[in-house]
Amino acid sequence: MEVRRFLVWLRQQGKVRNALLRECLGEVLGTFIFMMFGCAALAQVKTSRGSKGQYLSANMAFSVGVMCAMYCCRGISGAHMNPAVSLSCCVLGRLAWSKLLPYCLAQVIGAFLAAGLVFLMYHDAIMSYSGGVLTVYGPNETASIFATYPVEFLSLGSSFLDQVVGTGMVLLCFLPLDDQQNSPAPPDLVPPLAATVLLGVSMSMSYNCGGGINPARDFGPRLFTFMAGWGSDVFTCYNYWFWVPIAAPMLGAVIGSYIYLIFIQWHLPDPDTDTFAQVTTSENTKGEYLSVNLGFALCTTFGIYISKGVSGKLICRV
Amino acid sequence: MEVRRFLVWLRQQGKVRNALLRECLGEVLGTFIFMMFGCAALAQVKTSRGSKGQYLSANMAFSVGVMCAMYCCRGISGAHMNPAVSLSCCVLGRLAWSKLLPYCLAQVIGAFLAAGLVFLMYHDAIMSYSGGVLTVYGPNETASIFATYPVEFLSLGSSFLDQVVGTGMVLLCFLPLDDQQNSPAPPDLVPPLAATVLLGVSMSMSYNCGGGINPARDFGPRLFTFMAGWGSDVFTCYNYWFWVPIAAPMLGAVIGSYIYLIFIQWHLPDPDTDTFAQVTTSENTKGEYLSVNLGFALCTTFGIYISKGVSGKLICRV
Amino acid sequence: MEVRRFLVWLRQQGKVRNALLRECLGEVLGTFIFMMFGCAALAQVKTSRGSKGQYLSANMAFSVGVMCAMYCCRGISGAHMNPAVSLSCCVLGRLAWSKLLPYCLAQVIGAFLAAGLVFLMYHDAIMSYSGGVLTVYGPNETASIFATYPVEFLSLGSSFLDQVVGTGMVLLCFLPLDDQQNSPAPPDLVPPLAATVLLGVSMSMSYNCGGGINPARDFGPRLFTFMAGWGSDVFTCYNYWFWVPIAAPMLGAVIGSYIYLIFIQWHLPDPDTDTFAQVTTSENTKGEYLSVNLGFALCTTFGIYISKGVSGKLICRV
Amino acid sequence: MEVRRFLVWLRQQGKVRNALLRECLGEVLGTFIFMMFGCAALAQVKTSRGSKGQYLSANMAFSVGVMCAMYCCRGISGAHMNPAVSLSCCVLGRLAWSKLLPYCLAQVIGAFLAAGLVFLMYHDAIMSYSGGVLTVYGPNETASIFATYPVEFLSLGSSFLDQVVGTGMVLLCFLPLDDQQNSPAPPDLVPPLAATVLLGVSMSMSYNCGGGINPARDFGPRLFTFMAGWGSDVFTCYNYWFWVPIAAPMLGAVIGSYIYLIFIQWHLPDPDTDTFAQVTTSENTKGEYLSVNLGFALCTTFGIYISKGVSGKLICRV
Repeated sequence: MEVRRFLVWLRQQGKVRNALLRECLGEVLGTFIFMMFGCAALAQVKTSRGSKGQYLSANMAFSVGVMCAMYCCRGISGAHMNPAVSLSCCVLGRLAWSKLLPYCLAQVIGAFLAAGLVFLMYHDAIMSYSGGVLTVYGPNETASIFATYPVEFLSLGSSFLDQVVGTGMVLLCFLPLDDQQNSPAPPDLVPPLAATVLLGVSMSMSYNCGGGINPARDFGPRLFTFMAGWGSDVFTCYNYWFWVPIAAPMLGAVIGSYIYLIFIQWHLPDPDTDTFAQVTTSENTKGEYLSVNLGFALCTTFGIYISKGVSGKLICRV
Repeated sequence: MEVRRFLVWLRQQGKVRNALLRECLGEVLGTFIFMMFGCAALAQVKTSRGSKGQYLSANMAFSVGVMCAMYCCRGISGAHMNPAVSLSCCVLGRLAWSKLLPYCLAQVIGAFLAAGLVFLMYHDAIMSYSGGVLTVYGPNETASIFATYPVEFLSLGSSFLDQVVGTGMVLLCFLPLDDQQNSPAPPDLVPPLAATVLLGVSMSMSYNCGGGINPARDFGPRLFTFMAGWGSDVFTCYNYWFWVPIAAPMLGAVIGSYIYLIFIQWHLPDPDTDTFAQVTTSENTKGEYLSVNLGFALCTTFGIYISKGVSGKLICRV
Repeated sequence: MEVRRFLVWLRQQGKVRNALLRECLGEVLGTFIFMMFGCAALAQVKTSRGSKGQYLSANMAFSVGVMCAMYCCRGISGAHMNPAVSLSCCVLGRLAWSKLLPYCLAQVIGAFLAAGLVFLMYHDAIMSYSGGVLTVYGPNETASIFATYPVEFLSLGSSFLDQVVGTGMVLLCFLPLDDQQNSPAPPDLVPPLAATVLLGVSMSMSYNCGGGINPARDFGPRLFTFMAGWGSDVFTCYNYWFWVPIAAPMLGAVIGSYIYLIFIQWHLPDPDTDTFAQVTTSENTKGEYLSVNLGFALCTTFGIYISKGVSGKLICRV
Repeated sequence: MEVRRFLVWLRQQGKVRNALLRECLGEVLGTFIFMMFGCAALAQVKTSRGSKGQYLSANMAFSVGVMCAMYCCRGISGAHMNPAVSLSCCVLGRLAWSKLLPYCLAQVIGAFLAAGLVFLMYHDAIMSYSGGVLTVYGPNETASIFATYPVEFLSLGSSFLDQVVGTGMVLLCFLPLDDQQNSPAPPDLVPPLAATVLLGVSMSMSYNCGGGINPARDFGPRLFTFMAGWGSDVFTCYNYWFWVPIAAPMLGAVIGSYIYLIFIQWHLPDPDTDTFAQVTTSENTKGEYLSVNLGFALCTTFGIYISKGVSGKLICRV
């Protein structure tokens, strides 16, 4: 009897009654799960020198991780696991702007923890592979197990575009999956289908920059490698490139969402209850100003980009 | 308040009220999505010289792209994304013949745009791989990232047959998926299943000609490469071969559809409501003449083909 | 009007009113589809010397073919596409014994036709790969694109066991998928799941003998290669081995079915309506004798096998 | 008539009326199926020296095996097929503690039988590959077809952690799939989704120790190899390492389950009917003491582990 009471009491004490904290716990665990599969697979493929996996299997493991994470935390936090997705949800009126920062923080924490556990788990293999020297450059580099780095020949403009397009495609393909006005996927099978979208992106748009398309997935593990022995190179390399997979996905996600709205969503049969109306009828007054500001920023960026492209022979070497 | 009103107003202005235009927008975006995944994957595999993917992963990326595109535009345009599929739908009475050309045009535009964005995105990689020389032939050719080209030893007859059979198989396998008289797939899971059919075709029938089986997928990007620096070789190479992946799939799709009708559909339990009846009871009077003409053309082609094959040792080197 | 009437008339004339003929048409088309994907993939992988696919992609193409074929003809004939499956259905009382031979014949015809079309389609590639000499042995052999052949070191007993086990696993895994007393798969998703079972078998049990596990899949294409230029070697090679992938799967399928019945099915909650009862309460009186005879044959075979194994050091080199 | 009566009689005699025996039969067959696919695939990949498969295809075959096994025995025994899963079910109150040992025994028997049949089936190939010498070490070792072995450079602590984390991830990802308070998967599609989780784990967490994460999967085949000619090396190698994939998964499964409870399950909307309550309201009084003891053991282990890690530079070389 005593034991049973103790357990019930413990459980009641443990119950988190604050909704935001609960959601952040969900995001921490979700991002943790997704990154555990992904980073561990990258570690396995790299440290086994391809004998226990290949680039494709690392892509697949990331994808499986996303599916698992979505089933795990979708019921609590919506399973964003990506600040760019959270931002899009804010812009679309599906998430309160006040929750954006806590969500992002939780996602970074989850990714950081996963990187830590993968390092612990593959510590011997990483040491054996790298000869004990943790570097960002060279044939025995191991930093790319955790964060993403661009290929050598890539210009800054191209890498920025790469991340914008990659994240844009993800959002453009995610939104129809649960758009009830369109022809959505079965709600209880959205996780494997969303995971397949990510598999597709990582098989086709990850050569340039390693397929980050997720600020938390990139920054959390980068921070860990900074602390665990790879040193400040992880931030300074390629001319402080690390800001690209943080900033570009945020922009790309919003662009991708709007492309779906403009090409498809606005023209679907029943306009009164759609996503856009959610924005305009929500009480999210600050959100609107932000949305509009974002829209301006977006247009400006694209304008500069396109004019540069036209004048500078297709953006080569900005 | 002002912001909110502006957004609602913008959205109402943006709403496309013309059904055909709306459908064409859907086809543009759908074909764009599908080709983004596909061409980007081919670019990734080729320019990374196989280190970031393999032939299988490019096939899979095409397949994922089809799934994403179908979820995206199925609710608006039916997600053909292939003139050969649109033609089949016309022949089967599922699409008005008057919509055929606009659909095809929209599909070509979508594929063209995707090719352009992939070129922009992988510009540095393509330049690095090809040494800055964009060619159709040779070990550093990059034209096959965008359009399809036959293998050297292939005769014209074989390449035509290849495209006919490939597209025929696709239609033969697509039609049962949503044939309510047969044992169809779950309607909300048709996109991944149809994508799997295409994966199968590209894993088994793409060696000869690169697995185009889609005039828009082939012509749009070919046009782009013509304009972007590969020159007129993309059209003139292999003795003006480019017409094969345009013409053959159209024929193949119709043959594949009829094989399904003749072997299976006509004999299913309830004949009054089936596909064939749709043709014959629709008001599509011009369509009938076209169907019959097509039927004649089809029979003639096959007759010539078979007689040639019999007399000329199985079509070798027409 | 005339055209419309002609089409309706044609369609009414074309409707097959004999149920068995209709089912055989379904089996012909189903086996044709499944073998088109499979043989074409084997041709693509072999003639491209692995550059356009790998062993795994051929396995996957077979699997996709099975899925497509099941959606296509399941509503008409049950989509057996394998004499061993048809035999099991007879033993389980799901198919009349009188239909067994017509089904098998239809399956062989379908596989034969697919082999022919694949040969036509990959004629140039096969000629280029083999140097124009169609052989069963040697580094440039192309016979294994169509039929299956054992590895050199394999004893007859091992190859027989291999086919028995492979087919047994297939049936053992197929039966639960639609056993309504157990926890079945969604009926409209049985095709992809059954295809996955076959993928599993071909990834794990195909090294010894090429993973035939299907008399029609093996005999039809073998007959084609015999007629198309490979000569009598396709039958006489490896000491007339061709009978193994015909006989062994028949036995294996029955054993696999009974293992499922004995271990699982007999003990499920509601015994009155199960598969076994179907046998005993059907009017299939000849079937019973056959079943019992088969049971005896099976026990005898296994008895001999095991005693041989025990006395002769685990069946090595019978 | 006689035949029919005999069969009915046989079937009635064969019906197992004892629930536990029935469940154990199910676990035997389930584990047998899953290991047949897995071990056979490892044998195929290894003995064909990669020509008939690769590491990825072996991972996929294991995954397909799990799917097949779950459809087969889920309706009878719940399809644990892993002592670590059974232990978790006991801790969560889903399985009576009295059934734990019989379940584990049945699982080991199933894995043992599968190893035996795979050895029989691939006997010629294994002999040809290994030159007739069955060893645990060296380039021609074949023991890893059946049981798992660590890589050379791995410390005991790391291998223990590897198995704990791997099994923990499996349980953490399994539990949400059928948690009705969360957003579960479709009940009739849990087998392929659970199989996908295992695919993910084997693609990302199997380099260090071969991805056992299942005491029965590892011990059963190891016992078989001990008896079939590999000798006592299979137990004594790597300093009697074989206990790690037995003990560590048990701990990992419980930790993984609790992480799901603590991060997600406790905070889900309706607390009165959840998993935890099942424990506390079940009549499983002994189970509670065990649970609490386990909890203590778990905390102590982790405490020691972490303190060691902190003081000893991240657990390197315990």
